[in-house]
Amino acid sequence: MDSDFGIARELSDLQKLRSQYRPELPPCLQGTTVRVELGDATTASDPSGAHTISRSFPNTYGQPIAHFLRATAKVPDAQIITEHPAIRVGIVFCGRQSPGGHNVIWGLLDALKIHNPKSTLLGFLGGSEGLFAQKTLEVTDDVLGTYKNQGGYDLLGRTKDQIRTTEQVNAALNACTSLKLDALVIIGGVTSNTDAAQLAETFAERKCTTKVVGIPVTLNGDLKNQFVEANVGFDTICKVNSQLISNVCTDALSAEKYYYFIRLMGRKASHVALECTLQSHPNMVILGEEVAASKLTIFDITKQICDAVQARGEQDKHHGVILLPEGLIESIPEVYALLQEIHSLLKEGVSADNISAQLSPWASALFDFLPPFIRKQILLHPESDDSAQLSQIETEKLLAHLVETEMNKRLKEGSYKGKKFNAICHFFGYQARGSLPSKFDCDYAYVLGHIGYHITAAGLNGYLATVTNLKNPVNKWRCGAAPITAMMTVKHYGRGHGASSLGKPAVHPATVDLKGKAYGLLRQNATKFLMDDVYRNPGPLQFDGPGADAKAVTLCVEDQDYMGRIKKLNEYLDKVRSIVKPGCSQDVLKAALSAMSSVTDILSVMSSPSSGTTPF
Amino acid sequence: MDSDFGIARELSDLQKLRSQYRPELPPCLQGTTVRVELGDATTASDPSGAHTISRSFPNTYGQPIAHFLRATAKVPDAQIITEHPAIRVGIVFCGRQSPGGHNVIWGLLDALKIHNPKSTLLGFLGGSEGLFAQKTLEVTDDVLGTYKNQGGYDLLGRTKDQIRTTEQVNAALNACTSLKLDALVIIGGVTSNTDAAQLAETFAERKCTTKVVGIPVTLNGDLKNQFVEANVGFDTICKVNSQLISNVCTDALSAEKYYYFIRLMGRKASHVALECTLQSHPNMVILGEEVAASKLTIFDITKQICDAVQARGEQDKHHGVILLPEGLIESIPEVYALLQEIHSLLKEGVSADNISAQLSPWASALFDFLPPFIRKQILLHPESDDSAQLSQIETEKLLAHLVETEMNKRLKEGSYKGKKFNAICHFFGYQARGSLPSKFDCDYAYVLGHIGYHITAAGLNGYLATVTNLKNPVNKWRCGAAPITAMMTVKHYGRGHGASSLGKPAVHPATVDLKGKAYGLLRQNATKFLMDDVYRNPGPLQFDGPGADAKAVTLCVEDQDYMGRIKKLNEYLDKVRSIVKPGCSQDVLKAALSAMSSVTDILSVMSSPSSGTTPF
Repeated sequence: MDSDFGIARELSDLQKLRSQYRPELPPCLQGTTVRVELGDATTASDPSGAHTISRSFPNTYGQPIAHFLRATAKVPDAQIITEHPAIRVGIVFCGRQSPGGHNVIWGLLDALKIHNPKSTLLGFLGGSEGLFAQKTLEVTDDVLGTYKNQGGYDLLGRTKDQIRTTEQVNAALNACTSLKLDALVIIGGVTSNTDAAQLAETFAERKCTTKVVGIPVTLNGDLKNQFVEANVGFDTICKVNSQLISNVCTDALSAEKYYYFIRLMGRKASHVALECTLQSHPNMVILGEEVAASKLTIFDITKQICDAVQARGEQDKHHGVILLPEGLIESIPEVYALLQEIHSLLKEGVSADNISAQLSPWASALFDFLPPFIRKQILLHPESDDSAQLSQIETEKLLAHLVETEMNKRLKEGSYKGKKFNAICHFFGYQARGSLPSKFDCDYAYVLGHIGYHITAAGLNGYLATVTNLKNPVNKWRCGAAPITAMMTVKHYGRGHGASSLGKPAVHPATVDLKGKAYGLLRQNATKFLMDDVYRNPGPLQFDGPGADAKAVTLCVEDQDYMGRIKKLNEYLDKVRSIVKPGCSQDVLKAALSAMSSVTDILSVMSSPSSGTTPF
Repeated sequence: MDSDFGIARELSDLQKLRSQYRPELPPCLQGTTVRVELGDATTASDPSGAHTISRSFPNTYGQPIAHFLRATAKVPDAQIITEHPAIRVGIVFCGRQSPGGHNVIWGLLDALKIHNPKSTLLGFLGGSEGLFAQKTLEVTDDVLGTYKNQGGYDLLGRTKDQIRTTEQVNAALNACTSLKLDALVIIGGVTSNTDAAQLAETFAERKCTTKVVGIPVTLNGDLKNQFVEANVGFDTICKVNSQLISNVCTDALSAEKYYYFIRLMGRKASHVALECTLQSHPNMVILGEEVAASKLTIFDITKQICDAVQARGEQDKHHGVILLPEGLIESIPEVYALLQEIHSLLKEGVSADNISAQLSPWASALFDFLPPFIRKQILLHPESDDSAQLSQIETEKLLAHLVETEMNKRLKEGSYKGKKFNAICHFFGYQARGSLPSKFDCDYAYVLGHIGYHITAAGLNGYLATVTNLKNPVNKWRCGAAPITAMMTVKHYGRGHGASSLGKPAVHPATVDLKGKAYGLLRQNATKFLMDDVYRNPGPLQFDGPGADAKAVTLCVEDQDYMGRIKKLNEYLDKVRSIVKPGCSQDVLKAALSAMSSVTDILSVMSSPSSGTTPF
């Protein structure tokens, strides 16, 4: 199969057109000079974990953030890199394929070649396994020809990707050394970037000169923190899913006889489900984060859906569309506990057939209560991140089944007087993640690829490429990089599965912020969505005309751009210093002192551990 | 719920743009005059059924075909209708919703209003049930505002639609009489148009003045015959499904570890599966028509797939995409026979729980062999057209299960040496049929709506609106109408379910022609598709730019336009008559005689029953 990687292939007319599309660069990345400004040293957002993180990452913790500047920016401290020796860079796809991944490679290649045509880009074939085995393909513009702006990861392929065990880390180090790589660029989500940070630390410790660079690419959209606003692939996935959800809504409204239960891919967090809800306005969505926060049992959720069905039935509406994130199943406390027991037993080597007999009495009772198809699915071995095989557990069928049973009961008792409840179940994921990437993902990935080069040129190690102010047009985007260690947190409690990672610093998936603006928007509209069928169809992904430049609702409503604000703050501090120089009037100094003392007081209170956000 | 029909609703930007789109009219429908040319009397395509059909439809069999002509066409016999009294027309959605249905209503409304602004269009709410109950909504341009070029049937809704029993036919007649309808337009597929023909006959017999008009709208694409090249909705469905299939292909190629089994909606015939295969180039498709023609058992099919998996495995390919039409399950001889037995028992009132005990020994053996989830699904009551509930039977899971079992066996025995076989199953249907309609479906439906008016103005009863030469641009389209009775055939054999329709004339679903050009194209490429992963991604449905005007591959490769040729033939015959007038030379007459005698000899031989196509 390896021989097939990177071969040119037949494209449809639309694919051809897309392959001709050339993303724009923000002003700061144009030209052939790299101008980098290093900011203050970073800290961990959760102060309680800072010590643990700094001990685990002595070489790479506390590095400064970096801003890449436009050629004309007047920043006295900026480092200007005009010499660009030919370098060798390796790039590897890790984890679930996400639309846009190919454009990271393209952006990186373009940046390499612009700065020195003799530089070389090696793609590892078949993900991390290709890295360990040193299987490479030299990426050229020719090779990329039919992959530019195209979906999938098929240019290089991927595997089940981990770079974590000593053996794997050594193999990666050997590959980088023997291939004489100046940098290794890892394309992936939270798990892969945690691995990237560890690799960077190990390389630094062992005096390996290869710099490790991470690129935030994951359709789950859960690599979010103060530095990272969005992930490549999320925009496309949500648009394709929203198209399908909207089509199903139209279908529901036309047929008027079905409830559609749609489960969405997206791992533990519910970002995809939230975004799709805001785009399509289905009747209901049950976010894992809500369930976890309210500790809803599976019976609570069933009742909630049944009450909704009943309320709609009273208005003579016997159809509806309900979204469920694939991570929901793990958010239900008692199911989560059951999964823990099962995974522990599996780890002890108990075979799936014998597990039910060894469960604790209450877990056993829940297990027996579940329909056979779900039992089989929750007995599957957990994934590499210790979570259940979420894509394989048909939560939508389980809930449809429980709701149907309950509605039949209510119908029989006479408390529900509507038509018989009928459900149709769907899982949307695979059919979206191979899509042609949206314009946004094409642009974002291409720009991130360029930043990958700038990070390398600036000699930074263990950094993630960042773009902020993404809700604005490309020419307003701000480009930078932040140490991955600054995105880490340490989980100190939790039990059962995942326990192996307790106490270890990691980039954890961000969950939907129940105090955030996007979630607020959902809550404001929830009743209208539920009762009024205000379905909205964003339509199929467009590359021309209206809709082509639409951005994710969650991206636009959140007020982000942390990196931009950090820069702004520094400008204020500099300004204060330049105004209040020795020799200024007593009054000016007094005013400055008073104001600054007030600011520092407020900030000390706000950032004391007790008022900070609780670690997960 | 009724009060919600026809209300304006919030549209997304793309939906708004689409609602502004105005389809073009072919030249023959432009202007305010209706010019109709009635051709020769029609016959049934299957001569053996002609007698039965003419007996069942004494008033409406043998009516001439109609061509609608452009204002400047010089046709001496054309009837020119310049007086257009205000008329009242009813319209009803029947059967599965198909993208584009709303545009039929729009086209009809525009045509009505252009010819007389006082004419009225009444939409029946909730399908045939609304017709029986005389629940109507007056359709105006305002009402249509947010429904133009939009998917679904939600402007009027639909139900499980049949207009067949004496009671139903009487209710329809009463509705048409008391609402003083000049015409009733029925939007639907094979079943609904069979009902339309029967209704037209009954109306004629009972001297009801309402004309019945059929419009070919069905996503299945199976209302195909010499007069009808395509159905509204098929183009969109195939494009949306092909997008998803292609995304899955990209996913397969990126992950390299799964076989995707995708079942496609489309009822008994495999048109959707064939078209999607030609658009997306998945590795394999199993058409119901092939299975029926070769009498393949479920084991043969399993073996065929396993051999393919093995052949690919030998080239180190452990992924693939396999399409299955939903009708496949009924095409497998032994499963079909089992379904017959089950349906007979269900009709006798045997409850699902007791059926297995009453099956014949061989049927019972097959039943027991099937996995439990399939058993449950094949025990469901058959649909109104006597077929199994195809959308509910997960053939893709059954085959994936059987293939997995067999591959594991081969792996164990050592005859297969590749990686473990992993399948992921999908059913694509609901998520496509609510889609925004493609430009083709918008145009085609709108034009058919106009023709609906022209049929009414010409006073024709029991006709289906037709457009031919569809593979060419709209300005080349030919518009006409053909009696539905001319599309009927009579099934004389068959057993078990469906037996109730034996001997009765009906429009039967057209199956994929295994001697046709489209199927030929598939066969030519089958090996390449299977082994070389020449996946092609037509991309998401576009409304602008390349791909927006793409037409179905099957439509383009078939050389159709029967109506155009009928017209051409008549022109030749007229020309012969005008050249060979009494007074022409002996030699000219001799030449004409010789040529005509040869032509008639050839045609007599070709159209004798023995060489004709076998009725289904």
